[in-house]
Amino acid sequence: MAEESGVRGCMVIKPWGYGIWERIQKIMDAQIKAAGVENCYFPLFIPLSYFAKEAEHVEGFAKEMAVVTHHRLISDGKGGLVPDPSAKLEEPLIVRPTSETVIGAAMSRWIQSWRDLPMLTNQWANVVRWEMRTRMFLRTSEFLWQEGHTAHIDATDAMAETLRALEMYRAFAEDVLAMPVVAGEKPENERFPGAVATYSIEAMMQDGKALQAGTSHYLGTTFAHAADIKYQTKEGDHALCHTTSWGVSTRLIGGVIMTHGDDDGLRLPPMIAPQQVVIVPMLRDDEGDAALLAYARGVAADVGTQQALGEAIRVLVDTKPAKASTKRWSWVKKGAPLIVEIGGRDMAGENVSVLRRDRLYTSEGKLASVVTAREAFAAQAAGLLSEIQNALFEDARARRDAAIIPMTDWAQVEAYFKGSEDAVKGWARVAWSKPTGAALAAVEVKLKALKLTIRNTPLAADLPTASCVFSGEPAVEVILVGRSY
Amino acid sequence: MAEESGVRGCMVIKPWGYGIWERIQKIMDAQIKAAGVENCYFPLFIPLSYFAKEAEHVEGFAKEMAVVTHHRLISDGKGGLVPDPSAKLEEPLIVRPTSETVIGAAMSRWIQSWRDLPMLTNQWANVVRWEMRTRMFLRTSEFLWQEGHTAHIDATDAMAETLRALEMYRAFAEDVLAMPVVAGEKPENERFPGAVATYSIEAMMQDGKALQAGTSHYLGTTFAHAADIKYQTKEGDHALCHTTSWGVSTRLIGGVIMTHGDDDGLRLPPMIAPQQVVIVPMLRDDEGDAALLAYARGVAADVGTQQALGEAIRVLVDTKPAKASTKRWSWVKKGAPLIVEIGGRDMAGENVSVLRRDRLYTSEGKLASVVTAREAFAAQAAGLLSEIQNALFEDARARRDAAIIPMTDWAQVEAYFKGSEDAVKGWARVAWSKPTGAALAAVEVKLKALKLTIRNTPLAADLPTASCVFSGEPAVEVILVGRSY
Repeated sequence: MAEESGVRGCMVIKPWGYGIWERIQKIMDAQIKAAGVENCYFPLFIPLSYFAKEAEHVEGFAKEMAVVTHHRLISDGKGGLVPDPSAKLEEPLIVRPTSETVIGAAMSRWIQSWRDLPMLTNQWANVVRWEMRTRMFLRTSEFLWQEGHTAHIDATDAMAETLRALEMYRAFAEDVLAMPVVAGEKPENERFPGAVATYSIEAMMQDGKALQAGTSHYLGTTFAHAADIKYQTKEGDHALCHTTSWGVSTRLIGGVIMTHGDDDGLRLPPMIAPQQVVIVPMLRDDEGDAALLAYARGVAADVGTQQALGEAIRVLVDTKPAKASTKRWSWVKKGAPLIVEIGGRDMAGENVSVLRRDRLYTSEGKLASVVTAREAFAAQAAGLLSEIQNALFEDARARRDAAIIPMTDWAQVEAYFKGSEDAVKGWARVAWSKPTGAALAAVEVKLKALKLTIRNTPLAADLPTASCVFSGEPAVEVILVGRSY
Repeated sequence: MAEESGVRGCMVIKPWGYGIWERIQKIMDAQIKAAGVENCYFPLFIPLSYFAKEAEHVEGFAKEMAVVTHHRLISDGKGGLVPDPSAKLEEPLIVRPTSETVIGAAMSRWIQSWRDLPMLTNQWANVVRWEMRTRMFLRTSEFLWQEGHTAHIDATDAMAETLRALEMYRAFAEDVLAMPVVAGEKPENERFPGAVATYSIEAMMQDGKALQAGTSHYLGTTFAHAADIKYQTKEGDHALCHTTSWGVSTRLIGGVIMTHGDDDGLRLPPMIAPQQVVIVPMLRDDEGDAALLAYARGVAADVGTQQALGEAIRVLVDTKPAKASTKRWSWVKKGAPLIVEIGGRDMAGENVSVLRRDRLYTSEGKLASVVTAREAFAAQAAGLLSEIQNALFEDARARRDAAIIPMTDWAQVEAYFKGSEDAVKGWARVAWSKPTGAALAAVEVKLKALKLTIRNTPLAADLPTASCVFSGEPAVEVILVGRSY
């Protein structure tokens, strides 16, 4: 999937891991385009002054950023290279931690009148946030993402876009990644700095921790004011735009790993598996191999003409010169949804041996390989892939639902979460009075003592019947609290 | 297409320009994958020591690179931000000018035995080479590209891959970009530092200058030696791999602009046009608009179900609230291959008015808009798009061929090219003795006085019959010389 690169916090994404990202990009990009959003590309470097200008908004991540100070290397006279002191930049450049500021500046140039609105832009790019503690796919200094930035005529239109993006992420996480999530609004203390409202999708990993898997922000006129994004109204006045931004990243891959992994490695939802059916002919390095390979390719051709989950089935014949059992286990570990082994006996009987990655073992703990007639397999493959997609989602949903515990008083929360972090048990679902200011800060402290944070207020939640778990005051909404990545 | 970003040498690529890049990526990525090459992603940052280690190979671009020296900003106490002196990196990081070195290091880890070969990797990424003089799309400090890096068991296999990539680029430039190119080998003095052989595709811009539009390098064992890329042979010995690298970039878009542009803007080959048919309904902001829009959408639906050049036709109805003539000219300028205007009269007659972007005017200089029956247009659209694709290529090829002048002696070359750079007249096709060392350096100086360089030795060229244009000695091959971007 990925490995350390030798540069602190930066990873090398290997073909199978990058193939998952390509699947994510392909499917989500089509959804972004279908919503009328246009892709652009903005520069990697942002002048330092852009951040100084926006300092109050970027407080959350302004501090840890990669700073380019020189544009040339010269020999140090001892066989090494050093930054050339005579090539020091007048103004340092920041490697983008997000393109908010440059896109704001572009929108300020591009938007003249109400006719130009809404302006809907998106970028697929790498960004860098210097991280002290990194973790593969979940928190890396460099990561890949998409960032949507949109400008609108008023709050209603901007809020609709904010929620459209959120719903796109929710549906993507659940339908494509088979990862159940809760879409909701973040509390005030977890908002993107400068945002009027921040929404997230929260997934629960198998260890019960939350993963914030995507965010969508309604920014009001805060950023439009800072970047001077104005338009002429139909009446001829000038008004500030209302803007939004929303993004998901390679972190989604981390979410998939921790949602669907098991003791044998990864289990990939067929929608994002780079290959959905991997055929392993049991080659013996002898004269029988040619026939076996031809048979395997024939099976692949039959399967590849079928449609599953709305696309042609992606099928690979693994012809690498290695032992069949080694290859089988490498595909199990990588999480290929269907692994098809073909030996001489299978070929003689016009059969294939099929392993479902999501149901690898029989009840007795043996490999649940099913000998299936070749034609029957070609006919069943699409159905099996749909089944696997659904089964992974239902398994994860059942696990998640069982680990969201409604609680009505603080003592219950405390008793449940006290103890070491290893014993994370999911999330508590509690009612609260939605305090602000000092009262909110006190809630934060209380939660922090248990290593908890508020994840979000589920959009779909009913109004609370209980009183506030923190203060006993009348509650106004339901929130989820838990530990998180 | 693109605009300056406010960061020196970095551009903002706007939706239409980025849409062209997405088309290029989509088509070339499929070809790269079909050749068995797998996409990976490698880190943006490369430790300075990697370059020191490779200093002799990277001499060509080692000097001008973006150097990251700090990982944090702090307040300067005066309302501004400065790099935090306490967050100075122990080892500076270089923003990748190419990923040669990190990919070499990865291959060294990944390749163990002959079973792992060939290892075929590719990356789509942004890279940075600090440029003093920049020019939109042609020479920018940051640009987007793909870089293929492959490792092979021997020279034969590596050379085959080098030439496969070169031929992929040639066919892509000609068949997709409609940009005629000459595929050939670069002379020794123009080789990628460390390469055994460098090949290029050279396109001729309308001003007669050459654009090196893609390169493919056979690197021998030079880089394998530096990065320790070894494999165990079938016999159990250890041997160095033979490696290749090859790349094309957003520079291709610059090539398209300068190959197909005319006084009215860009003319896009249909293969890479983000939209191939743009329908402009002549809306009047009155109650008739609804019917006109419905009619326009009906035409779009009819056209969109047709296949052209192997894909569904990409068609857009431009509903922006702006004057129809303004919109028409914006699409002419952007180079949409077919622009279809629909007014009330067209609708009443079940017609559309069709403009071919490549043949915009009649012989009298009027707009060559052709009123066509709606159904006939839907039936003709695919054929028209193919015609435009071919016509752009044939026009460019005829222009290019007429500007490659065979010359047999130096006086002729000198007379032809002397004078100001503005009066560039294409390329000279000459024979030479392929000198090396000091003799080659003398040739370089001679050419430089005329602002000329050797572009390449065409792969398809016959053996020369004339003697060397520089020395009068027996010639061994034919070369192209010209001015270049």
